[in-house]
Amino acid sequence: MDIGKIPKFDFNILDRSEVDVRAVAAGSDVVVDGSPANEMFLLRKGRVRVHKNGQTFGEIDEGGIFGEMALIDQAPRAATVTAIDDCEVVPIDERLFIKLVQKSPYFGIEVMRTLVARLRTMNDGA
Amino acid sequence: MDIGKIPKFDFNILDRSEVDVRAVAAGSDVVVDGSPANEMFLLRKGRVRVHKNGQTFGEIDEGGIFGEMALIDQAPRAATVTAIDDCEVVPIDERLFIKLVQKSPYFGIEVMRTLVARLRTMNDGA
Repeated sequence: MDIGKIPKFDFNILDRSEVDVRAVAAGSDVVVDGSPANEMFLLRKGRVRVHKNGQTFGEIDEGGIFGEMALIDQAPRAATVTAIDDCEVVPIDERLFIKLVQKSPYFGIEVMRTLVARLRTMNDGA
Repeated sequence: MDIGKIPKFDFNILDRSEVDVRAVAAGSDVVVDGSPANEMFLLRKGRVRVHKNGQTFGEIDEGGIFGEMALIDQAPRAATVTAIDDCEVVPIDERLFIKLVQKSPYFGIEVMRTLVARLRTMNDGA
C-alpha cells in the first residue's frame, strides 16, 4: 500500500445522528486564541481565516479541518479562526475523534496530512 | 474517553521480526534535507538534532519519533537529522506505518501529538 494513494477521508460517512451542522456568519470567530478546546471542526461550507495577534497563518477551504491541534494536545487554542463567508461547520468532539481514529485509519491519516501541510508552510516561511 | 489520558504508544509492542535496529554513529546524518523519503524512525537510543541551512529546529530524545513528515506527505525531507550521540534507530517503512495506523489507534495519536508539539514550537517562535 502507498500512503500517497490513500484517498481523502470522506466526512460524508459520518453518521448524521452523531454530528450536527453549525452555521457561522461571515466575520464570526469559530475558535478563539487562548480559549480551552473540546472539539475540532470540519468545514462543510465556506472559507475561514486562521490568525493570531494580527498575523494571518492561512486560510482553510471547504472540506478542510481545523481546531485539531488543541484537541490533540489538550492545550488552549493556538490561534483564532474567523469565518470569511457564511460557513457551515461540523464539530467533532473528543469522543467522536477517538472513535474515528479507531474505526477509520484514513481519518487519522487525513489529520496527519493536515498537520504536516501546516508544518511545511511554517518551515517555508522560516 | 479522554485524549489526554491515552498513554504514550509503546514501541516495544513492535514485532521484532518486522523491524530492525540501525546503529548511527555520533555526527552522522540519519535523514538529509531534500532527499526522498520512504521511512520514519523511532529513536531507540541517543539524541538527534533537527536542522536546516544552519538553523536548529530542535532536538529529539530517546523514545521520540522523526522523519514522519516526508513519509506522510510523500514530499522530500524537510530538514536534516544528525545523531548527537551514538544512536539506535528503528526504521518504520510505509507498509508498517499503515499497518500501525490501522491496528493501533494509539500509534496514530502519538504521531499526531508529535506533529502538534512541533507546530506549537514553531508558532511560539513566529
